[in-house]
Amino acid sequence: MNICTYSYKEYLQLVKSFHGSLAPGLIIGGFIVDLAMKNLPEGEFFDAVCETPVCLPDAVQILTPCTIGNGWLSVVNFGKFAVTLYEKYSGRGVRVYLDTKKLQAWPEIRDWYLKKKKKNEQDSDLLLAQIKEAGHNLLSIQYVQVEPDKIRRKKMGPVDICPVCKEAYPTRDGEKCKACQGETPYAKVSEPPTKK
Amino acid sequence: MNICTYSYKEYLQLVKSFHGSLAPGLIIGGFIVDLAMKNLPEGEFFDAVCETPVCLPDAVQILTPCTIGNGWLSVVNFGKFAVTLYEKYSGRGVRVYLDTKKLQAWPEIRDWYLKKKKKNEQDSDLLLAQIKEAGHNLLSIQYVQVEPDKIRRKKMGPVDICPVCKEAYPTRDGEKCKACQGETPYAKVSEPPTKK
Repeated sequence: MNICTYSYKEYLQLVKSFHGSLAPGLIIGGFIVDLAMKNLPEGEFFDAVCETPVCLPDAVQILTPCTIGNGWLSVVNFGKFAVTLYEKYSGRGVRVYLDTKKLQAWPEIRDWYLKKKKKNEQDSDLLLAQIKEAGHNLLSIQYVQVEPDKIRRKKMGPVDICPVCKEAYPTRDGEKCKACQGETPYAKVSEPPTKK
Repeated sequence: MNICTYSYKEYLQLVKSFHGSLAPGLIIGGFIVDLAMKNLPEGEFFDAVCETPVCLPDAVQILTPCTIGNGWLSVVNFGKFAVTLYEKYSGRGVRVYLDTKKLQAWPEIRDWYLKKKKKNEQDSDLLLAQIKEAGHNLLSIQYVQVEPDKIRRKKMGPVDICPVCKEAYPTRDGEKCKACQGETPYAKVSEPPTKK
């Protein structure tokens, strides 16, 4: 049993090293990406969409060339456990999702996924064993036509120096940068003491 | 010269393998994360903020335990070249940014960063050489108090089966999932032919 070009065991090691823990969602995510890769439409360059920011983006980033930083991976916050890989020019893609109709055969996965059990009631060994046993059998595929303009990040465009903070920012954001317009997540900013 | 626990050369290899190319922004990003790590406030667990989705998130994901999928890395779309690492409970953090006042000594970096030259006019060998030479000297640091609630992703909360697509979704989104409410990035969805 492989996950893309890795053995199952190798994939678990990559998950642990990249993500920090053997999150069940990321192991299922490995099977999702693997099944998507095996059902790619024709084409050379593929971009990815994750329909949740939870866990799944890391499966895509570990297993494909698509990352957040290079822009080939987009995340939409639908809270859905699905990944689409699509040919970047034509938009033709394959979507793989966790099919709730197939969950009944693996009750520990079902109860975890549908949040029927609190964390301390879950049997994590059994959960991981059922995930490994289920493999692709939890999943279904669809063929989709992606509208890349709806999800791909926009080009930054011209930049200028913000008159307030003196840092560079995209002029599409207005007369000053978004942080100086008040959207900052920082309550307090202080400069370090100057060295003499 | 090291980038966190890696030699400069090892870091370039990681960038190439994870990100696909030696993007100048990701190399500067390595120095940004390195300088932030060297100036961490006290504490054990650190979350990260990137102020642009371009390149920088990959530096954080390569060099720290924070990823998009585990939720320890947040991205705000300010188009600013800055990373903050903050203690996850107190919010005390250090912000490292590309300081435009320090750009004059490295004209090739300046022209690339402020988009003064078209891509085909850039000298990419000179650009990478200046980035290596400049190292931390392009950067400045600030101490910040982060308001984690403003940026950290919300817990998903209860889930249910969407009455339209039959997939699981967070009930906070309403009576049906966001995709079935019309926010889908897919123009056309078709099921694969059933195998006989």
